[in-house]
Amino acid sequence: MTKRVIIATGGRLGKWASDLIRPDDVLIGADRGALFLVRNGFQPDIAVGDFDSVSPDEWEAVRSASARFVSCDPVMKDDTDTELAFRLALELAPDEIWIVGALGTRFDHSLANVHLLVQALEHGVACRLVDEYNLIRLTDRSIIVDDPEGRYPYVSLLPLTPTVTGLTLHGFQYPLDNHTVTMGRTLTMSNALSAPEGTVEIASGLLLVIQSRD
Amino acid sequence: MTKRVIIATGGRLGKWASDLIRPDDVLIGADRGALFLVRNGFQPDIAVGDFDSVSPDEWEAVRSASARFVSCDPVMKDDTDTELAFRLALELAPDEIWIVGALGTRFDHSLANVHLLVQALEHGVACRLVDEYNLIRLTDRSIIVDDPEGRYPYVSLLPLTPTVTGLTLHGFQYPLDNHTVTMGRTLTMSNALSAPEGTVEIASGLLLVIQSRD
Repeated sequence: MTKRVIIATGGRLGKWASDLIRPDDVLIGADRGALFLVRNGFQPDIAVGDFDSVSPDEWEAVRSASARFVSCDPVMKDDTDTELAFRLALELAPDEIWIVGALGTRFDHSLANVHLLVQALEHGVACRLVDEYNLIRLTDRSIIVDDPEGRYPYVSLLPLTPTVTGLTLHGFQYPLDNHTVTMGRTLTMSNALSAPEGTVEIASGLLLVIQSRD
Repeated sequence: MTKRVIIATGGRLGKWASDLIRPDDVLIGADRGALFLVRNGFQPDIAVGDFDSVSPDEWEAVRSASARFVSCDPVMKDDTDTELAFRLALELAPDEIWIVGALGTRFDHSLANVHLLVQALEHGVACRLVDEYNLIRLTDRSIIVDDPEGRYPYVSLLPLTPTVTGLTLHGFQYPLDNHTVTMGRTLTMSNALSAPEGTVEIASGLLLVIQSRD
């Protein structure tokens, strides 16, 4: 049985996020993400953060509903609430971590959350950022892409390292063979599956695999 | 006199974007970004794209209002509309390129647009992505940060290469001296200026300097 941790954090959240939570998920709420869980009838296994974005009433609602409550000093802490939640998730040795609410209007927060995929890869934990418009994963070798519910018609491949070599695609409308990807060229944008399942392989570097819709 | 090109593209746009346009700017509109310019009373110097996101009436409005109209085949083109606009901007040998509407709900588009900063750096052209919440620039050496209008209280520093070495900050609330930044650690998030002007210096790598507000 797959052990999955869902981290809810303070970016864009909505019904799509509560819909993907299963009864056996471990739930971690970071700051306003914890409030989102509680307001939608979920009991966070862990609530973590400086909670500088919630009112005293909201703080109490989160504290009383959460099995474990980890409150941090906003001035002293060096890490974002999402990174704290992510490290607590890793300590649970899960098979998968899904982060919801990781993307929003502040690009620095969104990108820092995407960078957490590097830590997940180093720990050998499958990890994804999910929202209504995006499903973001990272690979250093190969990854299978599917979209059984037809949510995300586009597949874009973007390097997280300056260069990614040996990019080879199978099962895509625009195939590529042993292609070198460099940052700043957009050849690998908005591809699409041509089969129920596609494979993305690389020889070196780190590649973001972003499934999306308009 | 500084020659500035403004590229308007199809992500989040609003009054803030038209407010920053000066009479002597060269204006390039990419796809729906061109429509934004025309609808707000500006005449694009160049409109470029496959225009697959505009109606026939909107297409005609953009075509007739634009000094130069570059229409591309959506199936054949390998690059995004924004990259095409960016390359046309570089051909004009400007001092600065500002990209508005570069950030939106599709993270693949947002990140690909951020990666254009690498091309700008290679061409020695100062470039920024601007929206209501973010001002994003890239450095391989040093950069001055200010915020005269108090728009963006936070300053986050995120690596675009796996490692950035020698990060040294002056004029910030949380100073750093010869710090090594690695992807996936969020120590360098949400800093703030402590003086009218701050400096960010690095020894190696590429560093995104993201000024933002909530």
